[in-house]
Amino acid sequence: MDYMKESLRLHEQWKGKLSIVPKMPIESKQDLSLAYTPGVAAPCLEIEKDIDKSYTLTGKCNTIAVISDGTAVLGLGNIGPEASMPVMEGKCVLFKAFGNVDAVPLCIKSTDVDEIVKAISLIAPSFGGINLEDFSAPHCFEVERRLKELCDIPIFHDDQHGTAIVVLAALKNALKLAHKTLDSARIVVCGAGAAGLAISRILLDAGAKDLTIVRKEGVICRGDPTIDIYQAELAQRTNHRLMTGELKNAMCDADVFIGVSAPKIVSKDMIRSMASSPIVFAMANPISEISPEDAIEAGAFIVGTGRSDYPNQINNVLAFPGIFRGALDAHAKAITESMKLAAADAIASLVTANELSPAYILPSPLDPRVASAVAQAVKNQAK
Amino acid sequence: MDYMKESLRLHEQWKGKLSIVPKMPIESKQDLSLAYTPGVAAPCLEIEKDIDKSYTLTGKCNTIAVISDGTAVLGLGNIGPEASMPVMEGKCVLFKAFGNVDAVPLCIKSTDVDEIVKAISLIAPSFGGINLEDFSAPHCFEVERRLKELCDIPIFHDDQHGTAIVVLAALKNALKLAHKTLDSARIVVCGAGAAGLAISRILLDAGAKDLTIVRKEGVICRGDPTIDIYQAELAQRTNHRLMTGELKNAMCDADVFIGVSAPKIVSKDMIRSMASSPIVFAMANPISEISPEDAIEAGAFIVGTGRSDYPNQINNVLAFPGIFRGALDAHAKAITESMKLAAADAIASLVTANELSPAYILPSPLDPRVASAVAQAVKNQAK
Repeated sequence: MDYMKESLRLHEQWKGKLSIVPKMPIESKQDLSLAYTPGVAAPCLEIEKDIDKSYTLTGKCNTIAVISDGTAVLGLGNIGPEASMPVMEGKCVLFKAFGNVDAVPLCIKSTDVDEIVKAISLIAPSFGGINLEDFSAPHCFEVERRLKELCDIPIFHDDQHGTAIVVLAALKNALKLAHKTLDSARIVVCGAGAAGLAISRILLDAGAKDLTIVRKEGVICRGDPTIDIYQAELAQRTNHRLMTGELKNAMCDADVFIGVSAPKIVSKDMIRSMASSPIVFAMANPISEISPEDAIEAGAFIVGTGRSDYPNQINNVLAFPGIFRGALDAHAKAITESMKLAAADAIASLVTANELSPAYILPSPLDPRVASAVAQAVKNQAK
Repeated sequence: MDYMKESLRLHEQWKGKLSIVPKMPIESKQDLSLAYTPGVAAPCLEIEKDIDKSYTLTGKCNTIAVISDGTAVLGLGNIGPEASMPVMEGKCVLFKAFGNVDAVPLCIKSTDVDEIVKAISLIAPSFGGINLEDFSAPHCFEVERRLKELCDIPIFHDDQHGTAIVVLAALKNALKLAHKTLDSARIVVCGAGAAGLAISRILLDAGAKDLTIVRKEGVICRGDPTIDIYQAELAQRTNHRLMTGELKNAMCDADVFIGVSAPKIVSKDMIRSMASSPIVFAMANPISEISPEDAIEAGAFIVGTGRSDYPNQINNVLAFPGIFRGALDAHAKAITESMKLAAADAIASLVTANELSPAYILPSPLDPRVASAVAQAVKNQAK
């Protein structure tokens, strides 16, 4: 099937992928008086007295916003806010389908951090959480940081943290198969944008000790005046050998390659230069850093990609529905680092020792156990 | 039934009155590939090329926002954005039930015009229209005016224009029964806030020639330095006799009293001082300017209120679902004055000459013909 062509046809037919539906019938004057005036004054007055009653008397307990400024949509780049809406709607569909979370798609017509932060913070009281989506680096970091300071609801940039959680889950299981450990594995993360930096951070938080980040210009090394403040912060915690040079230098003797970068930048020789039983997560979209076939041929032990047509799809949908399900159920004010680590553990644990194999390190995105396991893990950490 | 108590109980049970539901199942990898990646890239790219495709490929064609800053909620006043949400959700319920419009409830945590306008204009591309709700006067006028300038979608402050449309519809039918005409009737509008000024404006636009506006401080007269710029603009078009003094002066010999003001400020004597067959719309909420019983006893020919437990409920729900249904269907960029007048005509016309009586001047809010008649009238004007 030509997914692009068929998806376009379906989008023309759907005219929006979401419907907003009342939970009660409005068929009598009494229905009107209870759902609207005069009865509705009662919940209003309760919330005026105690703002926390928003969580029991309105949809805030189960509603989040999925917001983009359209600057880094899929692999398409900066296509603008309006053009990002099909993705935002799609994300909201998945939130409901997998996490039973009511999600409102919003796009925001600005790329100015001050404006974005102000607008989102002003509408934030309408929601129980905010999923930031497809904001480009580096302004995504500043937007998220400032919103977290201003808002008392979870703010979660999925391109960073959703990806990072699922990569950590995948890597935990891959390392088990390779009889290696996170704290001794030599890891190369290729890509120093939103996903690459968040992956690096969660791996370090989870115990990784030998991690090197590579960007287009080469290996990231502390003291380099050309890196930005976010890269510089991680430079302090990575590349202890103070390596410089290209990706191929970094990959030599590495146990793990994690790519969130560009198509076809990894050669078979680079895979051959890695340590024994190399783990290769080549997640550039839609064309990966190296094709799974080439990676396997060059000796990769485990290959993961972002694609659904190969084994080991490293897909954010394993994380975000459960993350927000758990956060909403717990009335959490934020998604903490410990919640993210627990979510990764929960995802990894759904593949039993018996099932675990080089072609099966993650549960399926369609596995109905995933969101509830992640939600439970998040809730436990919220306590 | 104690509506307040029962409504509170139901709101605790509902936990939000809206559900956001996908239009398609997500049960297979193929479903994922079509509603989300990789297929979703196709509609994104189409919209990037031609922004108008938002109307055919996303929910923009049928989705509006219902937004409040919580400064003038029901008759409760400035109760804050969070406490306004039960009303916004209720309004969204009615939009769907009567107009099949998908409506998103939003509250905005600011009372600063610049902030409100900026935030709403930045998220406006997500929607096909914006219904402003329960913003207090006079800042509601400035918010609406500036948003209309900035946005290329309909912006509609329902407390002004929805009320005005339904009052005009009611008055047209009431005048028919009283054998009077709009251009010769002496009309008093009591209340110079959002609703009062909008009612005055639409009545003048519809042909009223003898209209006097009264506020708490007394009759509004041109040249009065204490009135605001919005009241001053209407002072130029009203009170041609340059009357001053209190409400009771203005009501003497009036054919029509329209109250959107305060409880119990009209006495039986004031009704008795009106011209023959007086028309009294006493819409203060929840307690009207004079009780229908007292008004009738003092000789009122026709009495309308905002209440559902008396005849002639003058209820915005007769207007707003059809207004936006029509505007969305027409891809209208604005709600024009001619659309509002046509909407009032459409509502009034649904009561036939045979049915028309002093206790039946408006169709029921539950009459399923209303929204489609209003929508058709709006669409005709959009052409």
